[in-house]
Amino acid sequence: MTAVEHRPALLPTLGGAFYTSPAVFAAEQQHVFESLWFCVVRAAELAEPGQFKTVQVGRESVLLVRGRDRVLRAFLNICRHRGALLCTEPEGQLRRNLRCPYHSWTYGLDGTLMAAPNIASFTDPDGTALNRGRYGLLPVALREWLGYAWVCLADDPPSFEADVVGVVTHRLGDVEAIDNYRIETLQLGRRMTYDVAANWKLIVENFMECYHCATIHPELTRLVPEFARGQAAQRSVGSGAEFGSGVAGFTVDGRAGFAPLPGITPEQNRRYFAITVKPTVFINLVPDHVIIHRMFPTAPDRTVVECDWLYAADVAAAGDLSHSFELFHRVNEQDFDACQRTQPAMSSRGYRAGGVLVPAEHHLTEFHQWVVAHIGTPAESG
Amino acid sequence: MTAVEHRPALLPTLGGAFYTSPAVFAAEQQHVFESLWFCVVRAAELAEPGQFKTVQVGRESVLLVRGRDRVLRAFLNICRHRGALLCTEPEGQLRRNLRCPYHSWTYGLDGTLMAAPNIASFTDPDGTALNRGRYGLLPVALREWLGYAWVCLADDPPSFEADVVGVVTHRLGDVEAIDNYRIETLQLGRRMTYDVAANWKLIVENFMECYHCATIHPELTRLVPEFARGQAAQRSVGSGAEFGSGVAGFTVDGRAGFAPLPGITPEQNRRYFAITVKPTVFINLVPDHVIIHRMFPTAPDRTVVECDWLYAADVAAAGDLSHSFELFHRVNEQDFDACQRTQPAMSSRGYRAGGVLVPAEHHLTEFHQWVVAHIGTPAESG
Amino acid sequence: MTAVEHRPALLPTLGGAFYTSPAVFAAEQQHVFESLWFCVVRAAELAEPGQFKTVQVGRESVLLVRGRDRVLRAFLNICRHRGALLCTEPEGQLRRNLRCPYHSWTYGLDGTLMAAPNIASFTDPDGTALNRGRYGLLPVALREWLGYAWVCLADDPPSFEADVVGVVTHRLGDVEAIDNYRIETLQLGRRMTYDVAANWKLIVENFMECYHCATIHPELTRLVPEFARGQAAQRSVGSGAEFGSGVAGFTVDGRAGFAPLPGITPEQNRRYFAITVKPTVFINLVPDHVIIHRMFPTAPDRTVVECDWLYAADVAAAGDLSHSFELFHRVNEQDFDACQRTQPAMSSRGYRAGGVLVPAEHHLTEFHQWVVAHIGTPAESG
Repeated sequence: MTAVEHRPALLPTLGGAFYTSPAVFAAEQQHVFESLWFCVVRAAELAEPGQFKTVQVGRESVLLVRGRDRVLRAFLNICRHRGALLCTEPEGQLRRNLRCPYHSWTYGLDGTLMAAPNIASFTDPDGTALNRGRYGLLPVALREWLGYAWVCLADDPPSFEADVVGVVTHRLGDVEAIDNYRIETLQLGRRMTYDVAANWKLIVENFMECYHCATIHPELTRLVPEFARGQAAQRSVGSGAEFGSGVAGFTVDGRAGFAPLPGITPEQNRRYFAITVKPTVFINLVPDHVIIHRMFPTAPDRTVVECDWLYAADVAAAGDLSHSFELFHRVNEQDFDACQRTQPAMSSRGYRAGGVLVPAEHHLTEFHQWVVAHIGTPAESG
Repeated sequence: MTAVEHRPALLPTLGGAFYTSPAVFAAEQQHVFESLWFCVVRAAELAEPGQFKTVQVGRESVLLVRGRDRVLRAFLNICRHRGALLCTEPEGQLRRNLRCPYHSWTYGLDGTLMAAPNIASFTDPDGTALNRGRYGLLPVALREWLGYAWVCLADDPPSFEADVVGVVTHRLGDVEAIDNYRIETLQLGRRMTYDVAANWKLIVENFMECYHCATIHPELTRLVPEFARGQAAQRSVGSGAEFGSGVAGFTVDGRAGFAPLPGITPEQNRRYFAITVKPTVFINLVPDHVIIHRMFPTAPDRTVVECDWLYAADVAAAGDLSHSFELFHRVNEQDFDACQRTQPAMSSRGYRAGGVLVPAEHHLTEFHQWVVAHIGTPAESG
Repeated sequence: MTAVEHRPALLPTLGGAFYTSPAVFAAEQQHVFESLWFCVVRAAELAEPGQFKTVQVGRESVLLVRGRDRVLRAFLNICRHRGALLCTEPEGQLRRNLRCPYHSWTYGLDGTLMAAPNIASFTDPDGTALNRGRYGLLPVALREWLGYAWVCLADDPPSFEADVVGVVTHRLGDVEAIDNYRIETLQLGRRMTYDVAANWKLIVENFMECYHCATIHPELTRLVPEFARGQAAQRSVGSGAEFGSGVAGFTVDGRAGFAPLPGITPEQNRRYFAITVKPTVFINLVPDHVIIHRMFPTAPDRTVVECDWLYAADVAAAGDLSHSFELFHRVNEQDFDACQRTQPAMSSRGYRAGGVLVPAEHHLTEFHQWVVAHIGTPAESG
């Protein structure tokens, strides 16, 4: 027995085609983005009856609208008559109902077909009286959690408790841990949208490992010294990364931030927790704010990332957020630049069989296995 | 027996893939645009010998040129030697002949190979004396009718009398009806080119039905009240849509237009007739002018529409056309906006099996059957 | 026996799909650009240790860098760890080594893996001590000749002596002929980059024949009268095209150029020699300078051509190059314009079976056979 036998080995990554193939991306749209829970909007932005947003989920335009009964619902954004898009604006306020601007078929905010020109004069295809229930808007499953609306296009959605809540609970090791931050009560302080020329999986992998932190994140590693040693925050249950001893707060220069959120425990104070909720959500918990990334993959080599910085109401309203915001904005830019530099190499013959994972990246293998389990392995290409 | 049994049922439309699939569009290029009669240019714009235009028909660049014998001819716009485009300008005036600017192979305006450098020194591939007749420009069938040149790329073109003249005659119910307008004597008053982000079939369907008129065409329905009830002008043989009693002319505000065209009958006065000449031509007849749409489909989701407003010569030369032109220009913009709003929904899972046709749209089924007869049904896609 | 029997016949060309099909272009990338010797950069531009350039060869980004031992080397431009591009700039100067900016894996200028964070803590996938030799940069074969670096991505490169040197020697008919110009000692006087909307094979064919010269090259045919008769400079071994009797030099207006290069023979004086080194290099030799074209095909219908004008050192430093440069710059523009006019016709049904070669173009058949031998014949397309 020699010392080397105890050292962990390099492990293989996914091959390059996973990041470039249109067939892989189509399979991901079908089996991942259009089949699993996908976090789309902050629910507080749809607070009033009639407020709506349209969002892209995989290949579908989804309409979210709050009903007169104050229930938030999601539908495919198309008219059942001849298929026109009902709403073409990204957001807005409906007055009473949803009227298709092509032929005036009109739906309630709950999706029910209410009226259509000459509707009394026609029947169902089988000749029986028109069953309006058959022509309501096509519903999309929706759940609200952490102040966000999560939708699922699957006919038979997977368990939200297992796939979303359970993942967060398992990562934090404690069912109350996430509740302590009371994210649904926080207010949006800043939002940035990043248009990243890279496959969404490169962004996930980058978020999951910290082997790169010493190289590209000088501000972050100054705050959280263990990151400089390449330790990923997400490797073991319940672990958070501790701030350095001279660090006053999670800000770009380490100066003090804001008061800790009232519900967090002493163990949660002065720590940074990162959680990946596959496929497209990253949650970042620090004592005085929460940062949430939502990805919108649009092509094999392009992903739009929307990032929210959430604060206690009084801080969001009156605080100077700039030093707080600037830290993770820089981290984002550093990360997405690295992902953009990696994307072009994915089509090289030198990456056809992939690269290697060092021990600090070994947990990426679980993500790779998860991807393969959902979409299979792409065929070899010349 | 209940009353409902007498009401017409909803009918299915084509599925969404017909409007988005590259394979469907390729089949349409081959079996529709490159196989049927396609209306390309107003013949009066090529009045003089040597005048030429180049137009796109399906995937081909077609050269139209009037010969020294005053006959208008069409050819594939490529040199028989090494394939250079003969004319790259959209229009122009040739002096004596067509000289390829690459190697100076030279053709008469009738397509005959007249000269080539060193032509005396080479033979046909089989070694016999060069048969210049084998190297003339490749001809394209051409007919002039209603003042337009119609071309057909098929080796064996279908009957122009049946497919074009017959369609117009059948629609109007009378062989002389179209002749009364003497369209070939009219002059171009205005021309608009619309670049529409929609499949050409959505534009055809929109033109064929008026169920949408009450919703999107306020000016038009004020002039032609029956359109507000959703009655399509093209549903029954010979029918024209009558102007409202207070309407003085087919203008944007109903004020008087111009004197009726001299040849039309009293039955044709104060009426609007619409005719669809598949695949790509719409003819609109009103007492004092004629509007002709020609579509140039360029992609599954893009169609260029060229629209001509034609008037009696004295009106075109001296009349104030603005109120007359403005009406259908607005109608065009309203229609194309509706088509553009519909195109994105064609790729939705919610439209995979299509939508429904209300009774006022049932005649669209004939168009759908015509499409399927020409190109077949696209394979199911995930 | 009649006279016509002695005249050469027209021969067929390649069919249009060879110039438009994405499948043909993919086959060319694999079997031509990524398998044969490809001339990429002038070696003098990488004179100092640590100087690098990144170039595109087929679908690969290739990094060329001169080592501390002054040897020029080429590598795939990707890190062996997780595939990030090592260098994203087109050129630059490295200080000591190549450090991947994502995770700091660090390579020597000879490609050896020198360091990586925590490298001591991990082993090879089989558990044995890390064999750093397995993780060096992936090397690309490289040869320097005529002052240029030629690379080959094949695992087992073909003979450089046969495919490159031998082609030039065979064309000039003499093993010393090219050496007389001492091209590796010349200096870059001017460089032009042309972005040509045409398939690379059209550019090769254009360069190989002069049947077009009388039509599109007035300046060139004034200097070299035999070009006006359509004789290609490349048809027979050793032949150069002689300047006209009143021509003082190879300049745009025939005025005197510079002193002949010192090594050339009297037979090489007052003559123009053209050599095609397939797939992508053209060499043009005249008494007082050398012009070298390198093509970078980027799509079936797009080719970037980089053209260097090389002069004796004193001329490059102090001469007025404008009249000398202007001649072939015009020839290039005339040629590339012709190729761009030809490209669109390649997709016409009228060119599906190709065009014809006149006797002065018959030697193009060899090029066509060479292409077919490397990539095969594309499947028929509708």
